[in-house]
Amino acid sequence: MSAPFFDNVDRIDYEGPEAVNPLAFRYYDKDREVLGRRMEDHLRPAVCYWHSFNAPGLDMFGAATLDRPWLAGSDSREACERKLDAAFEFFEKLGVPFFCFHDRDIAPEGTTLAESNDHVSRIADRMAGRMEATGVGLLWGTANLFSHPRYAAGAATNPDPEVFAYAAAQVKHCLEVTHRLGGANYVLWGGREGYDTLLNTDLRREADQLGRFMSLVVEHKAKIGFDGVLLIEPKPHEPTKHQYDHDAAAVHAFLQQYDLDRSIKLNIEVNHATLAGHSFQHELAYAIANGLLGSVDANRGDPQNGWDTDQFPNSVEETTLALYEIVRGGGLGAGGFNFDAKLRRQSVSRDDLFHAHIGGLDALAQGLLSAAALIDNGKLAAFVESRYDGWRGALGRRILDGASLADLSDHVVANAVDPAPVSGRQELLETVVNRAIRR
Amino acid sequence: MSAPFFDNVDRIDYEGPEAVNPLAFRYYDKDREVLGRRMEDHLRPAVCYWHSFNAPGLDMFGAATLDRPWLAGSDSREACERKLDAAFEFFEKLGVPFFCFHDRDIAPEGTTLAESNDHVSRIADRMAGRMEATGVGLLWGTANLFSHPRYAAGAATNPDPEVFAYAAAQVKHCLEVTHRLGGANYVLWGGREGYDTLLNTDLRREADQLGRFMSLVVEHKAKIGFDGVLLIEPKPHEPTKHQYDHDAAAVHAFLQQYDLDRSIKLNIEVNHATLAGHSFQHELAYAIANGLLGSVDANRGDPQNGWDTDQFPNSVEETTLALYEIVRGGGLGAGGFNFDAKLRRQSVSRDDLFHAHIGGLDALAQGLLSAAALIDNGKLAAFVESRYDGWRGALGRRILDGASLADLSDHVVANAVDPAPVSGRQELLETVVNRAIRR
Amino acid sequence: MSAPFFDNVDRIDYEGPEAVNPLAFRYYDKDREVLGRRMEDHLRPAVCYWHSFNAPGLDMFGAATLDRPWLAGSDSREACERKLDAAFEFFEKLGVPFFCFHDRDIAPEGTTLAESNDHVSRIADRMAGRMEATGVGLLWGTANLFSHPRYAAGAATNPDPEVFAYAAAQVKHCLEVTHRLGGANYVLWGGREGYDTLLNTDLRREADQLGRFMSLVVEHKAKIGFDGVLLIEPKPHEPTKHQYDHDAAAVHAFLQQYDLDRSIKLNIEVNHATLAGHSFQHELAYAIANGLLGSVDANRGDPQNGWDTDQFPNSVEETTLALYEIVRGGGLGAGGFNFDAKLRRQSVSRDDLFHAHIGGLDALAQGLLSAAALIDNGKLAAFVESRYDGWRGALGRRILDGASLADLSDHVVANAVDPAPVSGRQELLETVVNRAIRR
Amino acid sequence: MSAPFFDNVDRIDYEGPEAVNPLAFRYYDKDREVLGRRMEDHLRPAVCYWHSFNAPGLDMFGAATLDRPWLAGSDSREACERKLDAAFEFFEKLGVPFFCFHDRDIAPEGTTLAESNDHVSRIADRMAGRMEATGVGLLWGTANLFSHPRYAAGAATNPDPEVFAYAAAQVKHCLEVTHRLGGANYVLWGGREGYDTLLNTDLRREADQLGRFMSLVVEHKAKIGFDGVLLIEPKPHEPTKHQYDHDAAAVHAFLQQYDLDRSIKLNIEVNHATLAGHSFQHELAYAIANGLLGSVDANRGDPQNGWDTDQFPNSVEETTLALYEIVRGGGLGAGGFNFDAKLRRQSVSRDDLFHAHIGGLDALAQGLLSAAALIDNGKLAAFVESRYDGWRGALGRRILDGASLADLSDHVVANAVDPAPVSGRQELLETVVNRAIRR
Repeated sequence: MSAPFFDNVDRIDYEGPEAVNPLAFRYYDKDREVLGRRMEDHLRPAVCYWHSFNAPGLDMFGAATLDRPWLAGSDSREACERKLDAAFEFFEKLGVPFFCFHDRDIAPEGTTLAESNDHVSRIADRMAGRMEATGVGLLWGTANLFSHPRYAAGAATNPDPEVFAYAAAQVKHCLEVTHRLGGANYVLWGGREGYDTLLNTDLRREADQLGRFMSLVVEHKAKIGFDGVLLIEPKPHEPTKHQYDHDAAAVHAFLQQYDLDRSIKLNIEVNHATLAGHSFQHELAYAIANGLLGSVDANRGDPQNGWDTDQFPNSVEETTLALYEIVRGGGLGAGGFNFDAKLRRQSVSRDDLFHAHIGGLDALAQGLLSAAALIDNGKLAAFVESRYDGWRGALGRRILDGASLADLSDHVVANAVDPAPVSGRQELLETVVNRAIRR
Repeated sequence: MSAPFFDNVDRIDYEGPEAVNPLAFRYYDKDREVLGRRMEDHLRPAVCYWHSFNAPGLDMFGAATLDRPWLAGSDSREACERKLDAAFEFFEKLGVPFFCFHDRDIAPEGTTLAESNDHVSRIADRMAGRMEATGVGLLWGTANLFSHPRYAAGAATNPDPEVFAYAAAQVKHCLEVTHRLGGANYVLWGGREGYDTLLNTDLRREADQLGRFMSLVVEHKAKIGFDGVLLIEPKPHEPTKHQYDHDAAAVHAFLQQYDLDRSIKLNIEVNHATLAGHSFQHELAYAIANGLLGSVDANRGDPQNGWDTDQFPNSVEETTLALYEIVRGGGLGAGGFNFDAKLRRQSVSRDDLFHAHIGGLDALAQGLLSAAALIDNGKLAAFVESRYDGWRGALGRRILDGASLADLSDHVVANAVDPAPVSGRQELLETVVNRAIRR
Repeated sequence: MSAPFFDNVDRIDYEGPEAVNPLAFRYYDKDREVLGRRMEDHLRPAVCYWHSFNAPGLDMFGAATLDRPWLAGSDSREACERKLDAAFEFFEKLGVPFFCFHDRDIAPEGTTLAESNDHVSRIADRMAGRMEATGVGLLWGTANLFSHPRYAAGAATNPDPEVFAYAAAQVKHCLEVTHRLGGANYVLWGGREGYDTLLNTDLRREADQLGRFMSLVVEHKAKIGFDGVLLIEPKPHEPTKHQYDHDAAAVHAFLQQYDLDRSIKLNIEVNHATLAGHSFQHELAYAIANGLLGSVDANRGDPQNGWDTDQFPNSVEETTLALYEIVRGGGLGAGGFNFDAKLRRQSVSRDDLFHAHIGGLDALAQGLLSAAALIDNGKLAAFVESRYDGWRGALGRRILDGASLADLSDHVVANAVDPAPVSGRQELLETVVNRAIRR
Repeated sequence: MSAPFFDNVDRIDYEGPEAVNPLAFRYYDKDREVLGRRMEDHLRPAVCYWHSFNAPGLDMFGAATLDRPWLAGSDSREACERKLDAAFEFFEKLGVPFFCFHDRDIAPEGTTLAESNDHVSRIADRMAGRMEATGVGLLWGTANLFSHPRYAAGAATNPDPEVFAYAAAQVKHCLEVTHRLGGANYVLWGGREGYDTLLNTDLRREADQLGRFMSLVVEHKAKIGFDGVLLIEPKPHEPTKHQYDHDAAAVHAFLQQYDLDRSIKLNIEVNHATLAGHSFQHELAYAIANGLLGSVDANRGDPQNGWDTDQFPNSVEETTLALYEIVRGGGLGAGGFNFDAKLRRQSVSRDDLFHAHIGGLDALAQGLLSAAALIDNGKLAAFVESRYDGWRGALGRRILDGASLADLSDHVVANAVDPAPVSGRQELLETVVNRAIRR
């Protein structure tokens, strides 16, 4: 029960679309240049610690099924060191540039916060060594403010200010560790910042608490000189009935209200978008339109199931539209694509972890190539540009620059204006996308 | 084919819970005092023109079924006058204090805007007479910016600025007519302000157009001295795939972004809330917590159907929670409960219109009485108050007034803080509500 | 850490609607006669072992929160005896006539099936003593065929016949124990009888396996002389992507296909109905119309959340319609209302278990009283009866007895038949229901 | 305002994946042989009359937008002849082998059924001529039993037997016309065979009426010697709250109950599957597993919208899985892919009708090619075959052939059977599919 844990898997290489080896990339070719940038630099993929190294295949109806030898034994620091070995062996063999973690993924909870912090610090030291040795970087760190019973009623939004204090202290330490490890971002997912029933909840008070918490984090980031990006991750519900960071628009409202919209960006998760009743593309487009896109949690939901299934991305049709928005919007900057995805409970073999990530990386790579083809041929952009032509004309400029309702009424009446609809060409544009995917 | 259209129905009276007459109120007793205010003044109920007087029972799969003699014949001004007669006969017999309309409900579309405006103005003159004679007031007016083909790609967010201009001119006139009729509010529902596909849409540009439009309306309101309230009505989708005014939070984000959050409030519709994945109570609570509640469109959706079924409210369990939020939040002010509800297509008899409104008014009245019982017994409020007690203590005040992450970390470490969860008492509180309903 | 576990709670009594004691029934008065039968005999309520005594407040995002001292320590037989003490103390204090269990709820899993069976048998002996002492009966038993990793790919529908055999052996023992304890029913919930992906699934083969399994159970029931009712419990998904026993209609199709429709009935669960896109009332009405109603799992879902929230019933509007169907359909026979409902994770206090069941029982009792009022006044039934009057006339009888398409065409053409729609009176009938609830 | 209506479009040809002409097929190459059969013979595509020639772009919130000159003027027989011209011009230019219609699409409703029948017959005569001249065949005909007010409460399930008779007479005539035109199938979609509220509905009685109706249709088919296939089309709801033909399983239950399962098959519609909470692939797999697959209505829904959006198919990922099931299941037989899809309301140009069908046909063709690649490489099938290997072994055969619960229990106990889970390989299999799509 020690490394190597994946001794029948070698480093995964790019072998091209015709490869027969299942343990190879067919599309993800990290050094391939796409629109003037390396594929890896576009995608900045990361493996997550929690689903891939902590989760043993439990669900609400059944026990652990997955073959995860490093999890054997108690939740000790030794077990966490074994897990670290397994994780870095995997990162390196898969060939990804980044990983992500929660503080409680990497180290055990102590009997006091001081003890927990100590565990995290020590594992972080060891982690730093592995990062240097392997060149794998930290896309983001985050504090788990939802698993422990103390957080049952929320962290920042808890009715008990001692819980707020505890969460604040935990974030302080995790932010500092993330900073020390050179993390590119720090994420805040408010898993229990919401309500189970409005009957016992003071919505306004809890919003103020959350605003205060975020302001403290922004201050501390400045104080310690962390230049990574702070990210809030929207999700509509689960485990709570309603989560305050419901979707990108709800977080946008919150950030403006507490004057945080220039200090915090968004980590958009695919399955959270769909649970909120939006397409992944929508949430990206909304975030980009408002200057809020930070990073992405890559996974997918099941269109027939109403919970967070966190499956590995496999729809190139979905990744194409997402990457089209992202690349046109200027890219992910410090963000990346974190595989916040978990194996199905029946995928019990250790090598399923490779198959799933290979499939996911290939799906992102194909999406990127298709998006690049769409950008290269320019058909969508040209159509959109011409569709709004009128707004660059005299009337369009007048409207935006100062005409009043009365002015516009005069214009309509005087000219007996009677505009007719023009085709939006949706079906044709969908065909343009399909042709780029099957290029 | 002229008034009276409901000659077998007399004025609907309050006859008490034991009444056997189906054409009577059992709970809606408008002059009954509840928490120091007349029931009618709490609820300010309104009948809507569109569903109740314009709609003949069409759906996407079938033809008109309802017995609506006033709609016979062409869409002429004479027909509209007949409709006005039917509507006021109904308002008066039902005994509601308010109604609501779209410009195109009350008068035909002309061949030019000038002609359409003229039709609206003339009908409005006649309407003013009826209002004075009957004492029925206008809760709100609104312009229909979604039915005509010119608005297929949106009104303010249309790619064609001529359509923006047309919409602006139409709103100008409708706002002025609403002002002239003493309307208490003016509503903006952006039925087609959204997209059918992102492939042909510039999200940022359309948001700016919508922001500009709303600013113009705010200016014009000031200019003409209209002191009613401007209201945006959120809806997530339908007819569009995605509507920009998706839910209360999305509109809140928009209003802040364009500096409109002190000028425009929300008209919350029950079925729009549920289509957006929220409870009605949630949308009200969110609006109230952010000072944005203006008015309510009363109806309900079907929990199994994913479109706007606009059924008459019949759940006292739902109206109780809604009125509990509203009354505790200070009431509806200039707003009211507008029955934006339509008869099922099989409810073909003319008197079904009475049965549906009587059932709806009784459901609101019962909800109000139950909410008052909850407020009177104070159990919910006391529980919530005590649940947040800690925030009124030293630590709570320190957090809100200036402690930093480092201060809070010191506090936690020094005191080995280890807060335990306290029961949220959800099941007990639900029982408290049930007891108030069956009081 | 031994009984009594609920020492600050006495037996829960009926104290009437005006009671101020929260630990009392306001509506559930078990001996009250309603439509000629005791309330308890209508409802036959049961407490479930799993949620109420085994579940410590875990969810997919967090650790145990509930105060459940009997669960402390290892999963030993001693712990299970402690749990039995807690359960029977609760059953007796609550005053319910029934409980329900899975084999794995009451006794630990051994290292072999023989050992597991032995554990179950020994606990069952002890249980039999408590049942006799307290008069609490067994509504139904069931085998847990979903939690152990061996069942990850299903039990009867597993690709491995050894798993089928294991499940068969487990059901054999559990059915026999249920028989020995005088269980009124035996339930089969196919928690993992479904698929996660069609890509690895042979749908036809798995249906045949399931059909075979059910036939074996029917045979064994006859062989041992168990005269309880066999019940399948439909659920559409979760934990699987798709469960074969999707809804009442899917099970009906399956039962007919394998000639089991006279041997097995349905256990309808409220939250499973709503997850399948049906109202609870619909699933009951469908089951009754097809002679398949066996029993009910009482709980509720959250209309905004797409997973099995299993909340305690609190909507009298929902229980009224359910009980209206059930009572008119002849009642539940050997079935009952099993509270397959769990406390919210924040309801950490031991007495929350009482509050939740009291609220649930009162909601069922109120539903029963409202349903009885509807049946007594006869308005709904009379309307429905008269609505189909024509089918008792000449043409209706002719159609059902033998007229051909050609005969009917001749009738329509000869008589220039032109039927007009008649009002379905939906809004009025909804008001009739509301008046019965607030009677 | 007479033919040609599409004078700026020539016949659409296959020009290969690299074509730049938008009015060309890139994948749909009807004579290309795939797995030993012409592509056209696999797909048997049909254009529908209703959406493509009758619908002017109305929705519940707005007026007609589409440029459809043949619809101008009254609903006269002359207008219907113009529409016939437009339709056949389109069918021929698009190059599809089939079309589908409702009786009321092709001819106006008369004042009596006799008159309506006469209109249908006369148009059918003209249609027969066009079919012979162009070689375009009829995939299926159907009677519209949902648009006229007489059907507001259902056709076969109407409370009024005169409506049943009227529907019977209408189906008789439409079935005969379909027979005369050489239709390959006849479809029954029960648009209003369901309920809006259970409060006014006798579920059992209505099921019996529906069973009787279907039996009469089966008899008449035999009597007139129509050897096409009778098809029921499942849909869960809309326009009704609940439609009896909810999904494939519900229809399967119904067909068995009324002994119709060897006489009627299913017409599976993509968007109806997804509205029912199923994937398209699921409904196909269920129908095939039960010998019930007849034909397909090709379209797609919007994953975020809960109504029947009937969009043109554009997901090759979805068509691949569908065609994999269909081709492995033996193909569609007399069925085909009917484009029951409508243009978005903003796609106002006449040539959008071509773009949409071209995109749809290409998506089906690509799906077919991908499915053929999956079948050719055999990886999925081999995995599934090996997964169930045990069932071909001794134990598997014993289970299916007669072992009892007791026998199996003895086997498990004697051998201390303890089966372990084996990987279901979902992620790997998803990658196999993706590689076949991007072959």
